[in-house]
Amino acid sequence: MLFDLLIHNALLLTMEPGQLPLAEGYVAIHRGKISEVGQAAAGQSLPQAAQVLDVQGDLVMPGLVNCHCHGAMTLFRGLADDLPLDQWLHRHIFPAEARWVNEDFVYTGTLLAVAELIRGGVTSVADAYFCESGAREALAQAGLRAVVAQGVIDFPAPGVPDPKENLWVAREFIDSGQEFRSRGVISTLFCHSPYTCSAATLQAAKEITRAMNLPFFIHLAETREEVSQCREQTGLTPVAYLDRLGVLDAQTVAVHGVWLGEADQELLAARQVKVCHCPESNLKLAAGIAPVSELRRRQVVVGLGTDGAASNNNLDMWGEMSLTARLHKVAALDPTILPARQVLEMATLAGAQVLGLAAVTGSLIPGKEADLIIIDLHQPHLTPLYDPYSHLVYAAGAADVRAVMVGGRWLLWERQLLSLNWPEIREQAVAWAARWRSGHGGGETAA
Amino acid sequence: MLFDLLIHNALLLTMEPGQLPLAEGYVAIHRGKISEVGQAAAGQSLPQAAQVLDVQGDLVMPGLVNCHCHGAMTLFRGLADDLPLDQWLHRHIFPAEARWVNEDFVYTGTLLAVAELIRGGVTSVADAYFCESGAREALAQAGLRAVVAQGVIDFPAPGVPDPKENLWVAREFIDSGQEFRSRGVISTLFCHSPYTCSAATLQAAKEITRAMNLPFFIHLAETREEVSQCREQTGLTPVAYLDRLGVLDAQTVAVHGVWLGEADQELLAARQVKVCHCPESNLKLAAGIAPVSELRRRQVVVGLGTDGAASNNNLDMWGEMSLTARLHKVAALDPTILPARQVLEMATLAGAQVLGLAAVTGSLIPGKEADLIIIDLHQPHLTPLYDPYSHLVYAAGAADVRAVMVGGRWLLWERQLLSLNWPEIREQAVAWAARWRSGHGGGETAA
Repeated sequence: MLFDLLIHNALLLTMEPGQLPLAEGYVAIHRGKISEVGQAAAGQSLPQAAQVLDVQGDLVMPGLVNCHCHGAMTLFRGLADDLPLDQWLHRHIFPAEARWVNEDFVYTGTLLAVAELIRGGVTSVADAYFCESGAREALAQAGLRAVVAQGVIDFPAPGVPDPKENLWVAREFIDSGQEFRSRGVISTLFCHSPYTCSAATLQAAKEITRAMNLPFFIHLAETREEVSQCREQTGLTPVAYLDRLGVLDAQTVAVHGVWLGEADQELLAARQVKVCHCPESNLKLAAGIAPVSELRRRQVVVGLGTDGAASNNNLDMWGEMSLTARLHKVAALDPTILPARQVLEMATLAGAQVLGLAAVTGSLIPGKEADLIIIDLHQPHLTPLYDPYSHLVYAAGAADVRAVMVGGRWLLWERQLLSLNWPEIREQAVAWAARWRSGHGGGETAA
Repeated sequence: MLFDLLIHNALLLTMEPGQLPLAEGYVAIHRGKISEVGQAAAGQSLPQAAQVLDVQGDLVMPGLVNCHCHGAMTLFRGLADDLPLDQWLHRHIFPAEARWVNEDFVYTGTLLAVAELIRGGVTSVADAYFCESGAREALAQAGLRAVVAQGVIDFPAPGVPDPKENLWVAREFIDSGQEFRSRGVISTLFCHSPYTCSAATLQAAKEITRAMNLPFFIHLAETREEVSQCREQTGLTPVAYLDRLGVLDAQTVAVHGVWLGEADQELLAARQVKVCHCPESNLKLAAGIAPVSELRRRQVVVGLGTDGAASNNNLDMWGEMSLTARLHKVAALDPTILPARQVLEMATLAGAQVLGLAAVTGSLIPGKEADLIIIDLHQPHLTPLYDPYSHLVYAAGAADVRAVMVGGRWLLWERQLLSLNWPEIREQAVAWAARWRSGHGGGETAA
């Protein structure tokens, strides 16, 4: 058999459970999928391929899976930081969204996000925002694998001035998304939270996604205030409340999950709910520290997400990995918690499980899509090399990604974006910021 | 006046207290020092210089100050992680040090560290280790500004098999360091900790540095165990114990300072002790969370350090800044704690104060040495720009450093190391790792 492409002489991490790193490893790719994975020492015979790429000992691994992102909020990056949560949200973010967010904004902001995501080695992303058809267009254009989720909230929102139409708009968004499926982009919806959506909205939204076998996203138990407010209003924790509404199942993705008691954790485990952990955002907004190792002990699948750039402020999964591996150690005063390999699994295979994509991506085995990245190991901060998992989680960064492939197509090569016109995106992003600035009469230092 | 070099068209952060960012800023440099700092819009006249560099809107700021590093431990990066502290130290790090560390190891390991430090925008570093003359040679060769501290410990150590000679060796190291002063490298000593040095050693070591007006470094109050052990043995906390020994003054640098009660904090403030915060190391080793904002409220000067690569595992000050800004917010559940600009000050001017170098570096004002870095703002994750402090602390990374200058000499230009032979350093580092591996009969995945 003659394959399309052979990548060889790699330190290969398949990220399949139990598999060890493969020195002098290779991946054969055909028609966008992984056909063969193996090892061949110098001189040993290799599979035949039309194109052969010797990566000279660099590391090849599955692309990263970012389970929660509001891509377009890159246009609000650094607009307001270090503020009390209510001021940040009500004086800055909500007004900015109300005034500026439309489909064009979301398209441009998502392109900007995608440029950053690809450079940082992300091959699959779950994006959730308003005017999400703009995001879908940007993601499909860039060639990233994605789950795009139209925001549902029981308040006037960008693109949905009348909240009574929010589910209708979401349903239309999902229906119009069929043509994007073949391009690796799945359309669904995202209920903002239990405190911004009514019980009726939550139940109807879940019915839509359940009927169509789609993931259902929701911010859940992010702050102490959310939990106490929910208890006051319903007598239940947010998790127990959603369970009473019938919203919790294996295709529900609970984002944040910071304030979870033992009963909440048991419930999430029993319902097979997936959790997305966003530690950089949780710390910056002072939300709290999610009980990640306790959830994992209960067999809950936990992926990682960056959240949006207004609360992070980057979309760098390497930072999330490094923080995840460290934060839970100090929270428990136990340095053995969440070793590096487990954290790398959270950012790859577990992330794919969270998004319902584990059959197609998240590890490098024959039959899955060729979603992979090449890491430049020939650098000071990755020298010498004793343990690749340790290097990736504790020492590497987004800039170490040399190349990114999704479904057999190179999106990044030698750190250059191939599917996007970066100068054009930059110009449009800067123009949006200039419009914002002129509306605020300031910003002498801005570019 | 004709200056040697004019850097202009920069977004300039001087990091002097109270100064705002200067758009279209310039820095004039003469004989290695900053001569003039100002602003000039397009068309306005600029100071004359032999060489003129237009940075096209990129950001220029003081180089970063890394207040605590064990550079040579880069050769142990990733050798042992995610282990209980006593296993990590006694089964891995101490045996590896006993077997491998000598002057040649320290020279090579420090060169490797310096390559990473320069690429990450560090212009001043405090290094502390054994066989420290190897480190001093490496740092001077690289052109980095440095305080190098010979380790003092009351056990057999690399280069000092008989601990009775530890102070004599340290004294010799300091005396032989005079010739390095003109190259920006100051020699002093570093007492490992209150639990590994006797009272007599601590007092005699402090006398040496006090008599010569040198900074005195010590790991202090890093773990709960250290505090309870000290209480058992002395009836005092480590801070109170050192105070009783007369070791605390304005030139003492307490590294870590994790477990500090209110009385300890008051004592550090009263004695004007400087503190070095190493959050990535503290989290990875599950040591705890230092009371940084409480110390700062008491006017204690706190700088940032990476610690060594065996406990971090990189020497990236951008990660330390991002974590410092986030960690203390979540610890206090208050998102207003340690805003971005304060954290950037910790990594620049406050760091210089910690090391006793604030008269020569840490901010960009006329008379100080030209220690500066250029940050590439023209990238997806730094676009658009509303607030430069926010970008630097919450979004930027080591790879965004385009250029690094120390004392008027470029050490990095367009991300290329100018003062080091990277291929040669890499070869030697890989050779050390191979020797370690052959002594352990394993490592099929290593490079």
